[in-house]
Amino acid sequence: MRPGHGAQAVEEPRIIARYRLRCDAGVVEDRAQKIAVEQSVEMPLAGVRDPDIMKNIVGKVLCIQQRGERLFDATIGLSARTVGADAGQLLNMLLGNSSMHEDVSLEDAELPPSLLAAFGGPNHGIEGLRALAGVERRALTCSALKPQGLSPAALAELAHEFALGGADFIKDDHGLADQDYAPFAERAPACARAMREAAKVTGRLTHYVPSLWGSFEEIDARIRLARDEGLKAVMVAPALIGVSNLVALTRKHADFAFFAHPSFTGGARIAQPLYNKLYRLFGADAVIYATFGGRFGYSRETCRGIADGARKPLGRLRRAMPVPAGGLTLARVKETLDFYGEETMLLIGGDLLLSEREALARETAAFVRGVENYGAGSA
Amino acid sequence: MRPGHGAQAVEEPRIIARYRLRCDAGVVEDRAQKIAVEQSVEMPLAGVRDPDIMKNIVGKVLCIQQRGERLFDATIGLSARTVGADAGQLLNMLLGNSSMHEDVSLEDAELPPSLLAAFGGPNHGIEGLRALAGVERRALTCSALKPQGLSPAALAELAHEFALGGADFIKDDHGLADQDYAPFAERAPACARAMREAAKVTGRLTHYVPSLWGSFEEIDARIRLARDEGLKAVMVAPALIGVSNLVALTRKHADFAFFAHPSFTGGARIAQPLYNKLYRLFGADAVIYATFGGRFGYSRETCRGIADGARKPLGRLRRAMPVPAGGLTLARVKETLDFYGEETMLLIGGDLLLSEREALARETAAFVRGVENYGAGSA
Repeated sequence: MRPGHGAQAVEEPRIIARYRLRCDAGVVEDRAQKIAVEQSVEMPLAGVRDPDIMKNIVGKVLCIQQRGERLFDATIGLSARTVGADAGQLLNMLLGNSSMHEDVSLEDAELPPSLLAAFGGPNHGIEGLRALAGVERRALTCSALKPQGLSPAALAELAHEFALGGADFIKDDHGLADQDYAPFAERAPACARAMREAAKVTGRLTHYVPSLWGSFEEIDARIRLARDEGLKAVMVAPALIGVSNLVALTRKHADFAFFAHPSFTGGARIAQPLYNKLYRLFGADAVIYATFGGRFGYSRETCRGIADGARKPLGRLRRAMPVPAGGLTLARVKETLDFYGEETMLLIGGDLLLSEREALARETAAFVRGVENYGAGSA
Repeated sequence: MRPGHGAQAVEEPRIIARYRLRCDAGVVEDRAQKIAVEQSVEMPLAGVRDPDIMKNIVGKVLCIQQRGERLFDATIGLSARTVGADAGQLLNMLLGNSSMHEDVSLEDAELPPSLLAAFGGPNHGIEGLRALAGVERRALTCSALKPQGLSPAALAELAHEFALGGADFIKDDHGLADQDYAPFAERAPACARAMREAAKVTGRLTHYVPSLWGSFEEIDARIRLARDEGLKAVMVAPALIGVSNLVALTRKHADFAFFAHPSFTGGARIAQPLYNKLYRLFGADAVIYATFGGRFGYSRETCRGIADGARKPLGRLRRAMPVPAGGLTLARVKETLDFYGEETMLLIGGDLLLSEREALARETAAFVRGVENYGAGSA
């Protein structure tokens, strides 16, 4: 099809989006129809005079199912062509304006193969992260550098202790950006150096994963600095840096593994399993999320959904590594691995940092041992 | 203070953030304290050993006020230093992780003067938009090119009719991105040309405002193309392109006026008045939002708050233009101007597009007349 000559009468690949509505049975059909219009042409249908647009572009209510009293699922077919292969535009067309209805949430979306292929998913995924860690079978371990306010030297010292304890990855607290107490250009080299120093002792490299904030150009420059320091992975919060930029960064810096942080995702009224699946689609190799039983209230069912969205077959996309976090503790390692299995990276931050500095490496080693010995029968 | 040597015992400028909690009275103090920790050091305080960090970085609950049964406002002082003058990081520190609590929302935030100055606000604001339109006193008028699916030629034809009717601004539907039916590189020149053609007839230039999606680099390139076409304003959805990129784009392309679209803001659990005020802070010259009585359910109180956040004094920031939208109709022009006053831009899209193509210019002229004659007594 030549570009720029309007929608034509072709078979349209559809996105099958499922919205949850909280409303009375008497109005649900009308509400669903309004969403279908809002998330496509966004104007009164009486003003849409082009029959091809009516047929191909306007959203279509496919099915309404009652889920409870005043609770319905409306399945709506949206035109994949409205996405134009852009991640931000995908979210815009899935829930942009309808995000402003308090009683509407997006539960799931099936994307046609062409859209899955257009985005491409993780460059490294679970296999790539295992290769980085040199770990084939067991779950991976990660901790976090906290609190912000510490100097680069102090953060590097913490990182060093975590690495001596044998953690596979050490990430920045997501609150670390470019603040005056630990500017990125000082923090990243200091922590990278600490990893190299620790590797001389342990014989294996723990990967420091810096937290990146800023405009695209600032993030781009920081990745280049990270590369100069021999780093292999970075972390971003796609909901705040812009999902289209996650796609662009993973394409531009395909040698890096990208960890996605869930900051700011909680309110979007997009179910967490779908949101994390979209992050995988947009290139996240690892998806960090709040696991059940920690500081946040996500249910086991939701967490199972997040892990499934990351790991289950999705077109030809690599699997993303689920990274349960948000208040995980050493005492819950076994329970967590029982639930998710070992194709998982456990992130424990605060619980390890409760130890005295001198005990940090030892506590980390206990964390690692718990994960190594899982499945051999000991907890 | 030299960078990179930790938080010190200085008087910390604070962000005064007000969170609304839905919980029982018996737990509200604990919940508020947990938010203060989550939105700062995000780790158990027992593990924070640096007294300067405890004093300066950890969030502090200042005040808890009951607003209703199971409804409280918790005012929390957050360290402004954690923001590092980055817009995405500001949102991260205001509500990043706490967005994952369903019973917490951010109602307002007072920023210290240093932070206001660091971002700088709109380059043009209300005065600049008035200068573009050549309109000193009356409200401004804007319409929208819809539906997506139309070819560039068809969109340009619509734009031409709107311009013949005398609208001040014509924006793309926010769903227009770079889709195959109307790629940006064809659509923008076609609409720019239509504006020039119409100006030959009317004697004044209507401003076409394209909708920009994509990665930062794609948006940057599209702004350059827009500049080559003589365009003066563009529209973005900051919640999806990344707020730090809004700041960067307004700095890099300071000659352009930026319209902010509210796509994806609805669920963030940030009160709309604050969210739009932050868009102003990040450089939006005009803030489009869903006005009361249209397709969305925002109250008059909320809409008053949005207009106030855009126009009331805020450090030394220029005023942003409120753009009430989301289902506005010709019949509601007077009511809307009665409510907001004339330092406003009215956005009417679908209501005008209900007319037959031949009547579009005439309907637009009626819209413009209604706005021009407001205050002269006729509606």
